Amino acid sequence: MSGPVIAALGGGHGLAASLAALRFVTDEITAIVTVADNGGSSGRLRGEFGVLPPGDLRMALSALCEETEWGHTWRDVLQHRFEGTGPLGGHALGNLLIVALWELHDDPVAGLELVGRLLNARGRVLPMASVPLDIEADVVGADPDAPDTVSLVRGQAQVATTRGRVRDLRLVPARPPAYPESVAAIRAADWVVLGPGSWFTSVMPHLLVPELAEALAVTRARRLLVLNLEMVTKETAGFSATHYLESFAAYAPDIRLDAVLADPTVVDDEAALSQAARVLGAELHVHRVGMSTSPTQHDRLRLAAALQDVLGSRRRP
Amino acid sequence: MSGPVIAALGGGHGLAASLAALRFVTDEITAIVTVADNGGSSGRLRGEFGVLPPGDLRMALSALCEETEWGHTWRDVLQHRFEGTGPLGGHALGNLLIVALWELHDDPVAGLELVGRLLNARGRVLPMASVPLDIEADVVGADPDAPDTVSLVRGQAQVATTRGRVRDLRLVPARPPAYPESVAAIRAADWVVLGPGSWFTSVMPHLLVPELAEALAVTRARRLLVLNLEMVTKETAGFSATHYLESFAAYAPDIRLDAVLADPTVVDDEAALSQAARVLGAELHVHRVGMSTSPTQHDRLRLAAALQDVLGSRRRP
Repeated sequence: MSGPVIAALGGGHGLAASLAALRFVTDEITAIVTVADNGGSSGRLRGEFGVLPPGDLRMALSALCEETEWGHTWRDVLQHRFEGTGPLGGHALGNLLIVALWELHDDPVAGLELVGRLLNARGRVLPMASVPLDIEADVVGADPDAPDTVSLVRGQAQVATTRGRVRDLRLVPARPPAYPESVAAIRAADWVVLGPGSWFTSVMPHLLVPELAEALAVTRARRLLVLNLEMVTKETAGFSATHYLESFAAYAPDIRLDAVLADPTVVDDEAALSQAARVLGAELHVHRVGMSTSPTQHDRLRLAAALQDVLGSRRRP
Repeated sequence: MSGPVIAALGGGHGLAASLAALRFVTDEITAIVTVADNGGSSGRLRGEFGVLPPGDLRMALSALCEETEWGHTWRDVLQHRFEGTGPLGGHALGNLLIVALWELHDDPVAGLELVGRLLNARGRVLPMASVPLDIEADVVGADPDAPDTVSLVRGQAQVATTRGRVRDLRLVPARPPAYPESVAAIRAADWVVLGPGSWFTSVMPHLLVPELAEALAVTRARRLLVLNLEMVTKETAGFSATHYLESFAAYAPDIRLDAVLADPTVVDDEAALSQAARVLGAELHVHRVGMSTSPTQHDRLRLAAALQDVLGSRRRP
């Protein structure tokens, strides 16, 4: 297999789902991962060592592991979290491995490549920016007693679980430097795949990194947005599928889309959604991609089949 | 290369030195490692998880790593200690990996085998006992103001650094169970190599595990004791080379030796040492094995050359 050259942007479980499907479609995957997590094991490691949060990078690498006993064994080891509530309790072993490699090698990408070699991973995984980031947002109605009040919410974990509506999203520091390899991967891709994933904390942050936004605007690659299976989350209260496309246009006025992939369960008005996609330059593709047993989670084989159709639908000119 | 079948007993830096040399002589190495460490990273992990102390096992595996870029890279990762004084500071990554594998697999030996596969290690590494141990000793004169007073010192780290003379050494729990694989390795060996290493805290403990002591007494293997390069340490104050052999006879009256290897710098009276060796049934071999630049550390090539001579000196009948 070779397949199209893909740059997959996102973070967390959403990106892992996209990578777990893309690996059936191509060998040529570069994952570009958010580095703004401030919760859990990653948050503790940022606090102790001042490093990039390793958790989403670890999950992306694990999703790309070789489909062999060796690959699965080491994936399971890297994904394993220590038991208990002591100093190590809750840390994923892979997070600790990545931080150790960052202490040993000046270049964070070299450490991630070594983890990829351990997993015999298909493709590679890069951080979205070369410095640890925080996300902050203006949120309307975080306090239910004051529904029109705007408050500042800081931290990816805090934004992801806010009770209010996210109105303005910013990175701290603003305008962070991208990895040159990430910029190059977007420019060299046949397709850029955005999402699925937590909208404001895993998918939108890339658009706030100037060099990535510029590369997304000028690349000759086609651009696919994969919509989530759950429209309404804490950070996207009241959202319909159409709202996502409007939100995308608001954050990335210079970036056209070529395709939008949606599960039928999130399409209540296909004509309206199709029209919203057309405004962005995109064709709407509706395919069933959720698991039968757990409809809010992507099924990697169904998603792979849908991606195969969409990514093959129009060739790079 | 195949070479003689070796069981190497010890712990810490001494065992690592012996393994780093033995690997030049044979492929067939089983290291049997003390599990009584209660200091540093291993002590903290025992405290947090109740596991066998992984540090000496990690060092032994690292000493057996494949002599390739891959082997050296992963050896360096496993040996790396986290910086700083936070919750992870001072932990060796390899210790954390071993503990994670022990959480994932019921059999501790399976986890150690997986680390060995990662390192493409020559040979295998087993724990001396299947439960975490403590060392305790009666010590004479630990308080310099009361030179004849006997006091109880508990803990490997504490015994290793006591200011008094170790008079009686015990394991807690007493008579711990050995790993069947360790017993089998001693019985199946052509040669058993004891030491070098901290006398009371890395070399003698094996003799206090009943199944290992019995296997050492009845095995058809030849038995080699490698003496240290420093005779006088905190735990062996006032010792000469002859004292070590007398101490061995006192702790292991049923175990004969076939060979004793000593560096010329520790032999002040070769006739007396040779006679003390003969009492144990052993031939004395005097070879230079220290580094030129650091005479109290074993040079792995000189030690390998000496071991090659000694292990080849008498064949198993």
